[in-house]
Amino acid sequence: MELIDQHRAFDGEQRRYRHKARSLDCDMTFSVFLPPKWRSESPLLYWLSGLTCTDENFVQKAGAQRAAAALGLVLVAPDTSPRGETVANDEAYDLGQGAGFYVNATEEPWSRHYRMEDYIVEELPAQLRSELGLRGRSGISGHSMGGHGAISLALKHPERYSSVSAFAPIANPSACPWGEKAFSAYLGKNRREWERHDSAVLLAEHKAPWPILVDVGSSDGFLAEQLRPEALERAALASGSEVSVRRREGYDHSYFFVASFMDEHLQFHADQLTTRP
Amino acid sequence: MELIDQHRAFDGEQRRYRHKARSLDCDMTFSVFLPPKWRSESPLLYWLSGLTCTDENFVQKAGAQRAAAALGLVLVAPDTSPRGETVANDEAYDLGQGAGFYVNATEEPWSRHYRMEDYIVEELPAQLRSELGLRGRSGISGHSMGGHGAISLALKHPERYSSVSAFAPIANPSACPWGEKAFSAYLGKNRREWERHDSAVLLAEHKAPWPILVDVGSSDGFLAEQLRPEALERAALASGSEVSVRRREGYDHSYFFVASFMDEHLQFHADQLTTRP
Repeated sequence: MELIDQHRAFDGEQRRYRHKARSLDCDMTFSVFLPPKWRSESPLLYWLSGLTCTDENFVQKAGAQRAAAALGLVLVAPDTSPRGETVANDEAYDLGQGAGFYVNATEEPWSRHYRMEDYIVEELPAQLRSELGLRGRSGISGHSMGGHGAISLALKHPERYSSVSAFAPIANPSACPWGEKAFSAYLGKNRREWERHDSAVLLAEHKAPWPILVDVGSSDGFLAEQLRPEALERAALASGSEVSVRRREGYDHSYFFVASFMDEHLQFHADQLTTRP
Repeated sequence: MELIDQHRAFDGEQRRYRHKARSLDCDMTFSVFLPPKWRSESPLLYWLSGLTCTDENFVQKAGAQRAAAALGLVLVAPDTSPRGETVANDEAYDLGQGAGFYVNATEEPWSRHYRMEDYIVEELPAQLRSELGLRGRSGISGHSMGGHGAISLALKHPERYSSVSAFAPIANPSACPWGEKAFSAYLGKNRREWERHDSAVLLAEHKAPWPILVDVGSSDGFLAEQLRPEALERAALASGSEVSVRRREGYDHSYFFVASFMDEHLQFHADQLTTRP
């Protein structure tokens, strides 16, 4: 694991690493913010970014370091897909590099590298444990495609995560254009397979073991067709899960929206991570 | 004045405008953050950015909107030079477009467009007054080249500004490589002319009518050769001015440094702008 960039920020350290990711069979870059006086037991928050993003969008635009420093949270921002010249890609912004959708692809030409679920849930935490000694409890959050990733990975691996939130998540990807396109490419034509990675479907079937905090902007241009937060609310009702979807008047899909409510999400995660068993 | 982008942020509005700048004889883009419940009397803080920047670096990376919203400050972020295909330029990052140095150029080929002092001090405030009704008191701050711009413009036009601060300013440009290169191009070979735009020289000759707050990072790679904050401290002693230069241990020249101390600067400006005559 190679340290490729480092800046002091809010009396902590904003670092960027490159490493050889076995699960993805390529080199990967990720960012980590270490708060002041971090310890191996410090709680971690994984942030999954949206379409077209790398690890840097969150690090530069979300304004999360200030509150994370105050709360003692480690912030981990992975990339959104495998990368590289030999990695399969597509010209569209919503498929291929920058659009991994946090699943393990089973279809060609994607199945060799596109194993983002394994990378996020298994390999990256193991890497942080072995290289930086980080073994604290973990929360997970994200934006848009990353909001889908956060909720669906947490529901699939509830033992791994103690707190879950999302900004403008693609809540029901098996029933929206972005999800239909990506899931049919990565997972094939069987819609039953898609549903195993769909937050709304998963939540309808199983009561979530933690409350889930979701913010969406009322002026988000993707709200009705792509995000479908109402599907998440219906699913929560069906399973008796505690899901709070807050519609923020006038906010859009940008990082200005994310930054505006970041402090509340970080406080939510810190509360969950320090009080839940 | 054309509104080209707009996002709700922290219950205020982050806007971006394009307009025809007479002083610069070209189209210019700038950003303005309007805090919640802004009024025509709301205080304004002008932010001048550094080499290679546009208005967007500050808007996206400084994390200033949260505190500005809480303090009721309007944030104005202009571009760092005239722009356009017909505007003189240079291949280097530290001359020409992106490197206006906030002076009115007298030399060719720069003198037609490079009149950033007039633009920042006269035209942009007049534009904001006539188009948005903003006529509150103004503070000025900036980073690196923009820190030079903030302090030197405020010292040259003390009636225009009621509060002044800077992050890692080029404090003594007539005696550092960046300043020598830019000033000789824009202002000619006469060093006496350069000194009329040099914060340390101006401050040594005239007592500043307000306290000046400066933060610099101890690990800033430009500190000794380009920034020279000690020249500002010596000048303040000579004129009896109140200048506080705080050396921040381990911080570098990046926006992570700027973001880390942004809230303190905004509070400083808000205090000055609401209490000084």
